[in-house]
Amino acid sequence: MKRTLINQLHLQEGKAVLIQGRILNVRSLGNITFLVVQDYTGIIQAVFEKNIEVKMGEAVAIEGLVKKEPRAKGGYEIQGEKVEVVSPIIEDLPFDLARNELNLNINTLLDQRVLSLRHPKVQAIFKLYDILLKGYETVMREERFTEIKTPKILGSATEGGANFFKVKYFEQEATLAQSPQFYKQIMVGVFERVFEIGSAFRAEPHFTTRHVNEYISLDAEMGFIQDFQDVIKILNKIMKKMFALLEKEGQPYLEMYKIKISAVPEEIPCVKLSEIKEIIKKEYGYTIPEETDIDPKGESLAGKYAKEKFNSDFIFITHYPWSQRPFYTMPSSENPEETYGFDLLFKGLEIATGSQRIHIYKQLMENMRKKKIKPTGMEFYLDVFKFAMPPHGGWALGSERIIQQVLGLGSVKEAILFPRDVKRLKP
Amino acid sequence: MKRTLINQLHLQEGKAVLIQGRILNVRSLGNITFLVVQDYTGIIQAVFEKNIEVKMGEAVAIEGLVKKEPRAKGGYEIQGEKVEVVSPIIEDLPFDLARNELNLNINTLLDQRVLSLRHPKVQAIFKLYDILLKGYETVMREERFTEIKTPKILGSATEGGANFFKVKYFEQEATLAQSPQFYKQIMVGVFERVFEIGSAFRAEPHFTTRHVNEYISLDAEMGFIQDFQDVIKILNKIMKKMFALLEKEGQPYLEMYKIKISAVPEEIPCVKLSEIKEIIKKEYGYTIPEETDIDPKGESLAGKYAKEKFNSDFIFITHYPWSQRPFYTMPSSENPEETYGFDLLFKGLEIATGSQRIHIYKQLMENMRKKKIKPTGMEFYLDVFKFAMPPHGGWALGSERIIQQVLGLGSVKEAILFPRDVKRLKP
Repeated sequence: MKRTLINQLHLQEGKAVLIQGRILNVRSLGNITFLVVQDYTGIIQAVFEKNIEVKMGEAVAIEGLVKKEPRAKGGYEIQGEKVEVVSPIIEDLPFDLARNELNLNINTLLDQRVLSLRHPKVQAIFKLYDILLKGYETVMREERFTEIKTPKILGSATEGGANFFKVKYFEQEATLAQSPQFYKQIMVGVFERVFEIGSAFRAEPHFTTRHVNEYISLDAEMGFIQDFQDVIKILNKIMKKMFALLEKEGQPYLEMYKIKISAVPEEIPCVKLSEIKEIIKKEYGYTIPEETDIDPKGESLAGKYAKEKFNSDFIFITHYPWSQRPFYTMPSSENPEETYGFDLLFKGLEIATGSQRIHIYKQLMENMRKKKIKPTGMEFYLDVFKFAMPPHGGWALGSERIIQQVLGLGSVKEAILFPRDVKRLKP
Repeated sequence: MKRTLINQLHLQEGKAVLIQGRILNVRSLGNITFLVVQDYTGIIQAVFEKNIEVKMGEAVAIEGLVKKEPRAKGGYEIQGEKVEVVSPIIEDLPFDLARNELNLNINTLLDQRVLSLRHPKVQAIFKLYDILLKGYETVMREERFTEIKTPKILGSATEGGANFFKVKYFEQEATLAQSPQFYKQIMVGVFERVFEIGSAFRAEPHFTTRHVNEYISLDAEMGFIQDFQDVIKILNKIMKKMFALLEKEGQPYLEMYKIKISAVPEEIPCVKLSEIKEIIKKEYGYTIPEETDIDPKGESLAGKYAKEKFNSDFIFITHYPWSQRPFYTMPSSENPEETYGFDLLFKGLEIATGSQRIHIYKQLMENMRKKKIKPTGMEFYLDVFKFAMPPHGGWALGSERIIQQVLGLGSVKEAILFPRDVKRLKP
């Protein structure tokens, strides 16, 4: 018999079908066995009027009749006739995947990743992540950005700093890309508007709930802007559309977490960093340490302020200090100690970083001199500014942090299939 | 004045507008200057009844009136009034971007990549690449594959072999992913059907027109297959849909190369490797060297045969030898020296590789023993086969090779924005 997909069963009412999938749950009630089965299109219950020898988690093929069942979620169930175990479980599962909550500590959750991913609530995280990717791909194209793919093995470090992984590249030493920064800027000179969904690697020795050493960055760069507010406006629009899609297509997964997704304001509130520092001090009595631009506690309080004052889960913080931003960031023309750099916070966590960039060769070289950065190895990037780069800017959005914050996950690692931290290279 | 995008000019006929973009061409005819300007939505000609001091390649803002012009491609032109150079060219361009053909040798083309990318025929390559990515994202979702992102820094080498780049990962030694093989298989146990668009890294010291050391792999993996033909069928369907989209949306770019895109047959011809070897010997008098499964000349002749015999630019070659395929490939049940592994050739070049995989733990361990591969470091992958993996298979499609073959480019490097080869780490 040919396989019928679970989402096609309603077309086969009263008929004999073959379904294939994984057993999510097995229950017995007297002589009756209930099997909940999942394939890539849906979930259905098969009811057998006998005892069935199958285990939760096994891959099965079930033959039976499709019956209307108003009490079932999809309106149908299978009156089971025959079960064949297509692939058995040959060792006990290390935990019970059938319980509503896995309740594993984060280390077990990640050590046992190949199995914990099968739990419906963990699956839900990555179904939402899939919708997020689809959203970014779709929305960026609607805004006429061209999708690009740039190299991740680099001949020299971008952006300065020491947080690079080193790669032995034949006879040379190379580094892994921290971001597509140089390349996406170069591509503004080609397509004016570009976006990339790609791996980013940071050798930061952090042990926090918000950092990992490898992640997927949603990047964009756009030309002919008036100022950094043009970048903010487009990012605002993108976020609004992506969240609309997450709400629409992600409903069943959000429901599992009892989450109502945040509304993205038409105009996300926008506050200068220097102002938000004053506000946080005045409103919440917290002084952000001098040596940081804004610390995690400060970000969290900025998020609280956005919620209380603007009823917004989002806030842009702008005009980050010159001393803290990379050399390609456009300095403010009103105050040289500030830049046209910004962050986007979502529920008190930075999810995006962006800025207007310097597009004038002389100014860029001057800024590098001031920052004591040597141009060696970056000539290919610097030279492009001799050739008519328009005013431009862009952002990097942390894809996993968005999902972390949407679902209120304890760590960003929960929003990554196989996360990498200082100690974790497996699975 | 607010900017009008070039593709919106038809709505402003007779009105004064401001456009912004890059000058693709400057021509003077007596006192008349013609500027061809490109923004991210289109190309337009602006005509000035005076001499204009601008250079090809500069970023400009032009004010003028929108006029109907039946001889123009889009039906309109700008009667120019004012030009402002938004960003100048301050050094001579190393080659003339205005000529129809760049005609640079491949080394100059790539050394000067940040500028050669601005040539319209080079842009066309990456516009097609953008459509290809869109196609894969869209079509895979239509077939209900879930998009995943898997790690590129690995704790141990996948697939055996020595062609790995090594990464210094804090106190550990890591390698860069050659493919998402293990992870996409694991994910079949979670979502049944998954796809990934991601970077792949191969430390192969090859100098050929078909190899690079970093590329974008279009991966997929699917469960509950009957046999490897199920994988072939879906890949056939995917290719057909992607090529339909390339034809439809890529028309202006294909025209620049005077290319009519290949038809993808409803059923791409499918020939066993052992048979194609016989055929090539008989038809073309060429004997494929014993030590290879099939060499580049053999692939090229297989392509010739597909064209001559089936009028197809595509051909699947199946049943690759056990000795040449990785340990996770399902051996043929009829002939243990063969596998259910296949390649897809497009115009005589391998663009995809795939197979049914072994899904039974015992068989996998046995196959590894036979191949003398130690399980050390792969336990997380091997263990998943104790937990009911359904029969499954998948493929890896080389995204850049598809575009190389569509356009008949001399090297795959021309289809990569910033390619990486043994010597090339910059730009």
